[in-house]
Amino acid sequence: MAERFEIVEKALLKLLEDKKYATLRDILVTMNPMDVAGLFDGLDEKQIPLMFRLLPKEQAAETFVEMEPDAKEILIRGFSDNELKEVLDELYVDDAADIVEEMPANVVQRILKHADPEMRSSINQILRYPEDSAGSMMTTEYVSLRPHMTVEEAILRIRRQGVDKETIYTCYVMEKDRTLIGLVTVKDLLLAEDDNTKIEDIMETNVISVTTQTDQEEVAAMLSKYNFIALPVVDGENRMVGIVTFDDAMDVMQDAATEDMEIMAAMTPSEKTYLKSTPFDLFKHRIPWLMLLMVSATFTGMIITSFEDALSLLPVLTAFIPMLMDTGGNCGSQSSVTVIRALSLDELHFSDLLRVMWKEVRTAVLCGAALACVCFLKILLVDRLLMGNDSISLLVNGVVCLTLCVTVIMAKFVGCSLPMLAKRLGFDPAVMASPFITTIVDALSLLVYFLFAKTLLGV
Amino acid sequence: MAERFEIVEKALLKLLEDKKYATLRDILVTMNPMDVAGLFDGLDEKQIPLMFRLLPKEQAAETFVEMEPDAKEILIRGFSDNELKEVLDELYVDDAADIVEEMPANVVQRILKHADPEMRSSINQILRYPEDSAGSMMTTEYVSLRPHMTVEEAILRIRRQGVDKETIYTCYVMEKDRTLIGLVTVKDLLLAEDDNTKIEDIMETNVISVTTQTDQEEVAAMLSKYNFIALPVVDGENRMVGIVTFDDAMDVMQDAATEDMEIMAAMTPSEKTYLKSTPFDLFKHRIPWLMLLMVSATFTGMIITSFEDALSLLPVLTAFIPMLMDTGGNCGSQSSVTVIRALSLDELHFSDLLRVMWKEVRTAVLCGAALACVCFLKILLVDRLLMGNDSISLLVNGVVCLTLCVTVIMAKFVGCSLPMLAKRLGFDPAVMASPFITTIVDALSLLVYFLFAKTLLGV
Repeated sequence: MAERFEIVEKALLKLLEDKKYATLRDILVTMNPMDVAGLFDGLDEKQIPLMFRLLPKEQAAETFVEMEPDAKEILIRGFSDNELKEVLDELYVDDAADIVEEMPANVVQRILKHADPEMRSSINQILRYPEDSAGSMMTTEYVSLRPHMTVEEAILRIRRQGVDKETIYTCYVMEKDRTLIGLVTVKDLLLAEDDNTKIEDIMETNVISVTTQTDQEEVAAMLSKYNFIALPVVDGENRMVGIVTFDDAMDVMQDAATEDMEIMAAMTPSEKTYLKSTPFDLFKHRIPWLMLLMVSATFTGMIITSFEDALSLLPVLTAFIPMLMDTGGNCGSQSSVTVIRALSLDELHFSDLLRVMWKEVRTAVLCGAALACVCFLKILLVDRLLMGNDSISLLVNGVVCLTLCVTVIMAKFVGCSLPMLAKRLGFDPAVMASPFITTIVDALSLLVYFLFAKTLLGV
Repeated sequence: MAERFEIVEKALLKLLEDKKYATLRDILVTMNPMDVAGLFDGLDEKQIPLMFRLLPKEQAAETFVEMEPDAKEILIRGFSDNELKEVLDELYVDDAADIVEEMPANVVQRILKHADPEMRSSINQILRYPEDSAGSMMTTEYVSLRPHMTVEEAILRIRRQGVDKETIYTCYVMEKDRTLIGLVTVKDLLLAEDDNTKIEDIMETNVISVTTQTDQEEVAAMLSKYNFIALPVVDGENRMVGIVTFDDAMDVMQDAATEDMEIMAAMTPSEKTYLKSTPFDLFKHRIPWLMLLMVSATFTGMIITSFEDALSLLPVLTAFIPMLMDTGGNCGSQSSVTVIRALSLDELHFSDLLRVMWKEVRTAVLCGAALACVCFLKILLVDRLLMGNDSISLLVNGVVCLTLCVTVIMAKFVGCSLPMLAKRLGFDPAVMASPFITTIVDALSLLVYFLFAKTLLGV
């Protein structure tokens, strides 16, 4: 599907190079703005305005919204005042606010100068809210109704106002002072049996809303949970200020999952897509954690150094260090990733801590016992009999497998509890994922290994 | 927010226990069906039908859909034939099909017996499609229009049919033989200037659709990309068979991200939520990968064993093994997780392989050089001067840091290329995440370490 699209893309760019503008335009007008926006990625600075001017007005604005910031900036700088005004007039306020956030100061000034006063004030309002809040992702364009209107009047109002609203399908019923008192869907209106029914008689009064300060991930989770097309955003006095629509929630959900994965893999999250990031961008996002984790591995080094004598008496012990450390790391990351994801999806809360620990310990005993048995047999059959390594006595084998079992239990215990504690303390639980837990579990498992070796083998 | 909800929940369950049914009912009817469904999780087998019968018919059906399978089964078994029929009549076909999939055979028979013939045939149709396909997630209830209808006739048709349709906001225009030729939104219809305009004159003819066989993750990605409320599903001859709505796409997106995370942390994905899984469930999903990875660590053990002489000559070399292995693992998982996520989000394709490798190698050189420098200083200042470990000569320090740098480059190279190769070969790239790559990178870094030690230190 994606590969088929690349072929079309190449054909269109060929038309542009060959200056076959009429043919190109005929094809472009049949395409979805999202796909047209994708085409601009492959163009150079001169081609961008050239192809943009082929688009009809409305499609041009819709395409503009979906373009990469670089291309947007090139276009805005090249626009005449009139062209800029035309594009701005077609934009929804939330999209305009996003563009303003992405652009350098001098471009922003030009945008605000040419936006009409109402849009300018809405943009300013949206930009005042914290970056990850409902206020910053909402749009102020929605259909508002009054309780005493009839169904017929409401439909008329939608017909008159709807063209500039991001969604007309959910309409919000407000008092004179903008207090939100109910909602009706267009479905309710269309299916109402009598056109003279009052809105207050058919509206849903148990309205689920968020405040301007609600975190955007919570907003997205609520839209997804309740299957709403839009969610109303109110201020502290329950006065309506905007709506968040499902399409923005989908983007937030995807970004949140990506961010969690990046943090879990010990990277600071990046807003750029992979192909747009330079190696230096990637370096900046990756090196801080690598440094921290490398330096903290000093402890594992110190533990090994302090048991150097034991290792030189029985060198075969060294051979099992990687297996013990890796298995511990894998067990820890299984538990931590499971718990972190459940916390993100709001399936788990701090009050479940004891339940989670008890569940993980039982799981760990099962895993630890199974792994230890297989490990014992493997060492006996492969390392001792097949490879003829006589220095691995039954007692050494026992020490390795006992350590393995204890490591698994410690790893799962640390893996499940640290993310929950982090969340409780107000940190992002995803930080407590594999790399961090691996470092802790490494040190613990080495300590246990050498203690067992000292006690049971007398080295 | 979630904690506040728990308090309400407890109060309501108290009302149920105290048999204050009228009060309980008055509160329940004001609640969203999604939240009412959550209440049933805390009830025992006898309370479930008791509370369910308090709900008015429509809310009861909406709540039923959102309940856990166990509670659904208890209810269905307890329903009279009439009650079952009433609930089934209120369900959308895709929800009914989901329920049929979850229930044991004898319950399914009862459901199919009491569903009306049209629903029965739709359920059977949906169940025929592969589990993760658009066909299996679609609903067959949508509004269909004919091209020669006027706007007024179309609105009338929606008013007559809409009550049973999952969404009325996008209507599909079909020929007599159900060939999909266009779509109109209710917004288009309401904002049309003339009620006598023909549908074929205002419909969007460039319809983006999926086939019944399209993978559900691709369907979700398309809904999210184009911001559609629904996406039409067609058969091989472009005949309309159903629609997929945005709310189902949101669930698919969340599940897909969870599944990727689970696979990346070396677990087989689970459909149960964490708190619903027994320790044995968790054990089953975790042990296969732990076993495989533990056994494959035999290779690292063998490498260490074959260099045992070198290690006993210079025991301090052992102390740096965990640091080298962990840093390699962290670098590899950074690259693999970034690439796996970009592949999932369709930002990256196999044709980008060389670009990705080149980007990762440059990033790796930056990271490797920075880490090696800091490591050199740390060993010099902390291990040698502060801790007075004289066995770490400058040459040993050099070998460690050189190995570190090479390990980082190898790790990032393996980390970025294996997931892309896996995808090319038709495997899930997420399998090629941290645990798998750690095992490979461990072996490679040990080999490099000992080769450098042999060559440069002559041990």
